[in-house]
Amino acid sequence: MSEKTLQYLTENREQLLNKLNTFLSIPSVSTDSIHKEDISKAAGFLETYLSDIGFDNVERQDTGGHPLVYAEYNQAGPDSPTVLFYGHYDVQPVDPIDQWKSDPFQPEFRDGRLYARGSSDDKGQVFMHLAVFEAFMKTDGKLPLNVKVCIEGEEEIGSENLYDILQKKKEQFAADFAVISDSGMVAENQPTLLYGLKGFTGIEINVTGPDNDLHSGMYGGAVRNPVIALTHILASMKNEDEVVTVDGFYDGVEPLTDHERELIKQVKGEDYHKSTGVPETVSEKGYSAKEHTMGRPTFEINGMYGGYQGEGTKTIIPSTATAKITCRLVPGQDPEHIQQLLEKHIKDVAPSGVTVNVKKEKLSAKAYKVEPDHPLIKKAAESYTKAFGKETVYVRMGGSIPVVEWIEDIYQMPIVLLGFGTPDDRLHSPNESFPLDSFDKGMETLVHYWNGINEK
Amino acid sequence: MSEKTLQYLTENREQLLNKLNTFLSIPSVSTDSIHKEDISKAAGFLETYLSDIGFDNVERQDTGGHPLVYAEYNQAGPDSPTVLFYGHYDVQPVDPIDQWKSDPFQPEFRDGRLYARGSSDDKGQVFMHLAVFEAFMKTDGKLPLNVKVCIEGEEEIGSENLYDILQKKKEQFAADFAVISDSGMVAENQPTLLYGLKGFTGIEINVTGPDNDLHSGMYGGAVRNPVIALTHILASMKNEDEVVTVDGFYDGVEPLTDHERELIKQVKGEDYHKSTGVPETVSEKGYSAKEHTMGRPTFEINGMYGGYQGEGTKTIIPSTATAKITCRLVPGQDPEHIQQLLEKHIKDVAPSGVTVNVKKEKLSAKAYKVEPDHPLIKKAAESYTKAFGKETVYVRMGGSIPVVEWIEDIYQMPIVLLGFGTPDDRLHSPNESFPLDSFDKGMETLVHYWNGINEK
Repeated sequence: MSEKTLQYLTENREQLLNKLNTFLSIPSVSTDSIHKEDISKAAGFLETYLSDIGFDNVERQDTGGHPLVYAEYNQAGPDSPTVLFYGHYDVQPVDPIDQWKSDPFQPEFRDGRLYARGSSDDKGQVFMHLAVFEAFMKTDGKLPLNVKVCIEGEEEIGSENLYDILQKKKEQFAADFAVISDSGMVAENQPTLLYGLKGFTGIEINVTGPDNDLHSGMYGGAVRNPVIALTHILASMKNEDEVVTVDGFYDGVEPLTDHERELIKQVKGEDYHKSTGVPETVSEKGYSAKEHTMGRPTFEINGMYGGYQGEGTKTIIPSTATAKITCRLVPGQDPEHIQQLLEKHIKDVAPSGVTVNVKKEKLSAKAYKVEPDHPLIKKAAESYTKAFGKETVYVRMGGSIPVVEWIEDIYQMPIVLLGFGTPDDRLHSPNESFPLDSFDKGMETLVHYWNGINEK
Repeated sequence: MSEKTLQYLTENREQLLNKLNTFLSIPSVSTDSIHKEDISKAAGFLETYLSDIGFDNVERQDTGGHPLVYAEYNQAGPDSPTVLFYGHYDVQPVDPIDQWKSDPFQPEFRDGRLYARGSSDDKGQVFMHLAVFEAFMKTDGKLPLNVKVCIEGEEEIGSENLYDILQKKKEQFAADFAVISDSGMVAENQPTLLYGLKGFTGIEINVTGPDNDLHSGMYGGAVRNPVIALTHILASMKNEDEVVTVDGFYDGVEPLTDHERELIKQVKGEDYHKSTGVPETVSEKGYSAKEHTMGRPTFEINGMYGGYQGEGTKTIIPSTATAKITCRLVPGQDPEHIQQLLEKHIKDVAPSGVTVNVKKEKLSAKAYKVEPDHPLIKKAAESYTKAFGKETVYVRMGGSIPVVEWIEDIYQMPIVLLGFGTPDDRLHSPNESFPLDSFDKGMETLVHYWNGINEK
């Protein structure tokens, strides 16, 4: 049943890759207002493509922020299920730009990979879905199931308008299940079914001492240095056993079960030394690196700065210091509650002589978990195995996708997280890339999955 | 004896201020190679002025870095002492530029102060000395003593070539005593004789974990975050009692004597709350702010950075984190030894999973102290009091002037630190300024001092 569709994809591979490159070459960076036009252009690309494929009611929805692209196909009939396909066309910023080997928005093929910002996260994977829909329409003249397409432009900045839209337009977006390809396999060519995601919350700490930077000779010994004060605050929040030492942080955390520890053992996973270059891996006392990344909460400082950063020396006591913190959460932790705990701790330990402010970041998400043996999950695993020729492993991911939590919250529908990225893709870093192997076999996986969807 | 010279200064005040403004408008920033031409221009200004005044052997000396301006006057005769006048024509960088109310290199008079980078540190004070020499030459036709002028262009970046020059040209620069005006009074209109300076040493710490920034969802729990590692290292080096907790740091430190604590008590000093805006002052346990700034060593982080500093959130584990540290030292502490102690401590406490590097800054200086009752010191105090109408206080300063240590080391001559700056001058910060009151009364002080120099 899938043969003709697969053949179409093979025969049209070059054109499809060219089209993907066009999509990738649009610098749709959501976090920087300088790219507002590019965002619009990327949305326009999708509108055109979806219309060309034959979707109905293709529309650009105004969100108050970056537009959302919607489309639907209802012609598979009432006996076929409806899937909500979600993805995002916005991408991460590119800094530090000097570390890219090729222009992040001039896609390049090197060593079996396609290098561009967004090639893995998420435009490459979004495109794969649309290419598969195109293939079905061009060969079968129809899609095997009903589809609602929802591709937004704010995922990298927290999808802050999406929840309201999904809520307000509940009927329009309603479906039997959702499919998202915005995650990765645990290793190259290793089918991975993601059955859990971490939640997410963040704060920013600012410590201010004097009104201005001070001459460190004249004032050293008279005032508390805000940078030093900040290091004391931060050092008190996580210890060298990688345990978060903020009161209440672990309350209600769903423990990692023995069954899960077994599933995790089966995941060959990444060689962290090789992929990251660290001298050794480090994880929470009592947990392996895999167990911690998959099933334990985290506390990270994403950026910290204060005072002089230029060439050489500048003998000042800085006026102010700042740290940006984000935590990945597991089931049982509430994002807003965690922010309150962090803030309370900071205020409790803040030294004298400085003013400490905590800003709570708006974007947040609870953790998500689905049963690994749900029929839709199992069908996805089988389709994967068919395309990749390997048994599928089941994992929980360290990352967060807020929209997953919201879809669960509004619709209570199963969400199938079917990602084709790989550990070397370098998401959020310079030299992001996506393997062509994932492109080819991923589309094959989808063809099998959609074709099998109507079977009991 | 001083009347005519003082009158000259009063009558020519406007021209002198205009000339000073010309000097101040040259952006002679030593730390940034983009200002190489300006450095040369500033040296040229001094050469011209010194020649016009009537100095002999005015020359621009090549140092291997920024030029040194030299001049001499030997016509006071062998019965008059020779003073080595040292100053610097280079200035601090101006960042953050957006906090300046007027262009740092377009001098402006506001509320009795002259606003420009270098107006206090050190061009304003250097100019005052030359103006006084001009006044003597124009009125008496001679100077009351022999003078050797040494004005360099690298003080703000550590005077790294100066020591070698003073050593190699020992005879050329030899004198009976030295005078430097590159410091400040403890309060406006409070004559202050500086009898001690702190030493100085610095290091830079770099902590590196992964080769690149990592996605904090995929790798949080697998690797040590270098920023967090750095905060633990730094927090272990100074505690909340403002005591440096590096082994051996205080070994050999000359204690603050009761006599000195008495001298310090007499210094009304600065209202730190008012001048800095801090919620409260903080100093080493067992010492007041004045005692710590004047007579105890310090440990400051001048700059600290790692990871994302832009708008909003970026969910990364940074690849690397850096901190720049400088310590002000007191008599008994050796700069290189302190660097070794800091490095040893850092290596001892460095957590696993990251690579820690310590770079030792080249520029350093030992602390300096002279006896407060030396005749040349006492004459200076009397001249001050004559001009300012107030008893002179004796203080040790928290800052360092490396050249003082070197002059002591090479020549063992008394060094008179006769500064006219004030606490509100905002050295090393935006909106640096210098009171016109200091300009006028400072020059008067110098006239009295030089005229009294030959008396026993």
